[in-house]
Amino acid sequence: MKVWYSEISFSTRRRSEVVDLTDQILQEVRKSGIRNGLLVVNLPHATACLTLNEGESGVKNDLLRKLDELVPPSGNYEHDRIDDNAHAHLKSSLVGTCRVLPVVEGRVVRGTWQNFLVVEEDGPRTRRLSVLLMGE
Amino acid sequence: MKVWYSEISFSTRRRSEVVDLTDQILQEVRKSGIRNGLLVVNLPHATACLTLNEGESGVKNDLLRKLDELVPPSGNYEHDRIDDNAHAHLKSSLVGTCRVLPVVEGRVVRGTWQNFLVVEEDGPRTRRLSVLLMGE
Amino acid sequence: MKVWYSEISFSTRRRSEVVDLTDQILQEVRKSGIRNGLLVVNLPHATACLTLNEGESGVKNDLLRKLDELVPPSGNYEHDRIDDNAHAHLKSSLVGTCRVLPVVEGRVVRGTWQNFLVVEEDGPRTRRLSVLLMGE
Repeated sequence: MKVWYSEISFSTRRRSEVVDLTDQILQEVRKSGIRNGLLVVNLPHATACLTLNEGESGVKNDLLRKLDELVPPSGNYEHDRIDDNAHAHLKSSLVGTCRVLPVVEGRVVRGTWQNFLVVEEDGPRTRRLSVLLMGE
Repeated sequence: MKVWYSEISFSTRRRSEVVDLTDQILQEVRKSGIRNGLLVVNLPHATACLTLNEGESGVKNDLLRKLDELVPPSGNYEHDRIDDNAHAHLKSSLVGTCRVLPVVEGRVVRGTWQNFLVVEEDGPRTRRLSVLLMGE
Repeated sequence: MKVWYSEISFSTRRRSEVVDLTDQILQEVRKSGIRNGLLVVNLPHATACLTLNEGESGVKNDLLRKLDELVPPSGNYEHDRIDDNAHAHLKSSLVGTCRVLPVVEGRVVRGTWQNFLVVEEDGPRTRRLSVLLMGE
């Protein structure tokens, strides 16, 4: 049984956008050499989200728009007295920042339309993503 | 340390409904023989959700209705230009598709009212659920 | 490879409030002696939520208020026929109850503003939190 850890660095370019990191994550899975076990992907940030969904531009735009509708960027937020990103914190709690998936025979078990998407809500920023594999 | 993987197949009958898969998942836990470790349950789909909640019909109906209220099936969604299930994708990102729980002395540590519920939002369909156990 | 399990007991004092359990969880990580692997934190309850976010009072209040806005405590909920906490069940499914994080060189890899926050929505109550570590 082996533990393998790595971090992916990436930059976002706009205040809000969806970044698809599927290729980079799958490359880490291959590098790990782990063929049976699990994959933990974690975004160590509180103003962005990690989700699994289709990497199609319509889905990405719908997701950003829906999150803005549910949690408008400008609102009567208490946290905005000390910072201006309360909405981004709230979105991060609604969508979450970690996903765990099985790895079977060297392949991450995920749906055809489940790409690893980071939802930036307080960019542009340099971000990092944690990738941990545990198994054999 | 052992890794055990299995898939559960199931069918949904309506466009939207809540399916309780607790019994099937606990059966897989027993089959695995793993007594201490963790259970990863994953729905490899982007138009349905996996959650832990009470398997009572009122809760199930309230959940479907609240999700429809937050993300109406018909909306001005970009993804609907190429498909008609944008709302289902958005719900999947809000609720999520994976849950991880401890297994202690052969028992999954969960609350009395925490059943494993799949929320179908783009049915009827044949779906599968991934169950991975890792431990001793 | 080792599995380490523990439970944290805590009490909430109000109907709804945010409780920061970061210190207690990190203490369990130290006690486990596990230096490389993963941390699973799980709230075995269906009327409260577990999230990672900033432990600042404004964020906490914004989170409670946003959840009440998205899922008002009083609504036309079916579950309220047999109980009066349907809103708390719905919030639990939206935010979730489990978080998984890497442990690297004895340190939980999390963001500067990612504290472990429990959102009580059906208090006051005595609650418990599951902490599982697996690794070396």
